[in-house]
Amino acid sequence: MAVVFYHGGTSWAEEGVMPDFSDNSNPIGPPEGLIYYVREAVERGVYLRFPANLAEEVLREYEGVEVTVFNGATEALLAAIAALKPRRIVIPWPNYADYVRVAQLLGVGYVLVEDPLQAASGDLVVMSNPNNPLGRYVRRDEVLDLARRLKARGAALLVDESFIDFTRGESAAPDVPVVKSYGKLLAAPGLRVGAYLGDPPPGLKAPWRLNSIADYAIYHLGASGIKKHRERTLAYIAEELPRVWQKVAKCASPLPTDVHFFVVKGREPKGVKVRPLWTHGLADAYRVSIKTPELNDVLIKAICSA
Amino acid sequence: MAVVFYHGGTSWAEEGVMPDFSDNSNPIGPPEGLIYYVREAVERGVYLRFPANLAEEVLREYEGVEVTVFNGATEALLAAIAALKPRRIVIPWPNYADYVRVAQLLGVGYVLVEDPLQAASGDLVVMSNPNNPLGRYVRRDEVLDLARRLKARGAALLVDESFIDFTRGESAAPDVPVVKSYGKLLAAPGLRVGAYLGDPPPGLKAPWRLNSIADYAIYHLGASGIKKHRERTLAYIAEELPRVWQKVAKCASPLPTDVHFFVVKGREPKGVKVRPLWTHGLADAYRVSIKTPELNDVLIKAICSA
Repeated sequence: MAVVFYHGGTSWAEEGVMPDFSDNSNPIGPPEGLIYYVREAVERGVYLRFPANLAEEVLREYEGVEVTVFNGATEALLAAIAALKPRRIVIPWPNYADYVRVAQLLGVGYVLVEDPLQAASGDLVVMSNPNNPLGRYVRRDEVLDLARRLKARGAALLVDESFIDFTRGESAAPDVPVVKSYGKLLAAPGLRVGAYLGDPPPGLKAPWRLNSIADYAIYHLGASGIKKHRERTLAYIAEELPRVWQKVAKCASPLPTDVHFFVVKGREPKGVKVRPLWTHGLADAYRVSIKTPELNDVLIKAICSA
Repeated sequence: MAVVFYHGGTSWAEEGVMPDFSDNSNPIGPPEGLIYYVREAVERGVYLRFPANLAEEVLREYEGVEVTVFNGATEALLAAIAALKPRRIVIPWPNYADYVRVAQLLGVGYVLVEDPLQAASGDLVVMSNPNNPLGRYVRRDEVLDLARRLKARGAALLVDESFIDFTRGESAAPDVPVVKSYGKLLAAPGLRVGAYLGDPPPGLKAPWRLNSIADYAIYHLGASGIKKHRERTLAYIAEELPRVWQKVAKCASPLPTDVHFFVVKGREPKGVKVRPLWTHGLADAYRVSIKTPELNDVLIKAICSA
């Protein structure tokens, strides 16, 4: 099938014309400190100087493993895949479509599969965990087991954990190479903060790998600031997600999830923005991400009156 | 020879302890509008939304060719080289050391040469024009001629024009693939703004390729704002560079240059920060970049009293 590139959410230049549930950013928004420190970074003119890569120290403390920061998971993904020199990339499907773009950029073939172990012809499996768009989390021991089985067949595994902070799940790093985004948890996708977790391959650490404003803000927010925000996020999801999911389940067919977004089977509701999945070959299914309780009630109403 | 990675300039976290001529950012600083629009971007919270890639339209107008923005030339370079799938990279030396890092990341060999046409074994030549650290500009017709000769030998050419805006030189794009930095001209290296010039290879355009703050600021600065800043920069260099260079020439051995920085042969002066070049295998040589007239007098005095 042809992969269609489409992204949820809106850019800074777009007016939101209807409630937007297509964007799977953090439903509780950014940590307060982030807004304060971004403003301070700009007042101090840090963008007129080189990045210090001090965010890396903070993220290393937050993750408990070696971290290489990047200007977003997009950059981490390209560097990580390029370093692995794949001849053919295997992508369990549905998944994040950007893996396909990287395969195109590198000029290597790719195959979309149901079971990653089925793909005898590929030498690198790239997958998101929790899965985007499905929202399911695979336990660390299962991921490590998959990596072992793939290795026995001569294939490597790269895991994108951009949504793992929305679960109580444990990272596969450093046993398996991992890339992730922090823009989702921090609800600041325009800041571009991503990372590679694990021992960096030679040449991974570019001299300037994160813009100075993000570098300054993350450094001052600190590991404790990020941990606190994650706990607040998890508490909110634990309370609000089941409420929304169960109400939606009374009038539509939501799929089980481990994060703050889930897939609903059926026709798209009207008057709200959702993430269609025909782009992933899933006709009659869409992804929604929870927001504030008030907005979520709008979503429930829209789905149930469809 | 072993390539040592070392960069001029200081990060936002470092205190400047002495006048710094190692950093080859724009000597007249950033355009006024940039500071205004960066602040406005932050007040409007654009980093909490996705980038719109509108800076791309502005830079396309500025360059007159197709542009793909990146979070810095570092990212543009990796993507451009990865897309070219080289087996062995040829780097005319001395040059910008980051090309070596990219070769290491991609796991491909590299060779440092004097004449790019000598390297029969490589299939991709990567070079800066104007050259960093030497400061010499090669004319567009000569670059195109080199590309043709290389093509006849089965090799491609990628040119890094990060300093071309400091000359009246003409870009080799779109006839030859080009990457460049805008952080040097804008004197905002921490903002991370770079680009690929020319028709983008498949998969080059990542969904989020520039942080929203830079995207907003460049968009509002506009092509005319960048052009105006370039003209002011060129006028300053035309006046100040010969003055500094000629005074230095009276007591040391500066090499000819086409930009705002040049190499001096001899031992490093004391009391000022310069860019040593032993990292490039050039013992007893260093690079200096002009600053304000007052600071340049400090540099001249330091060199002439060495």
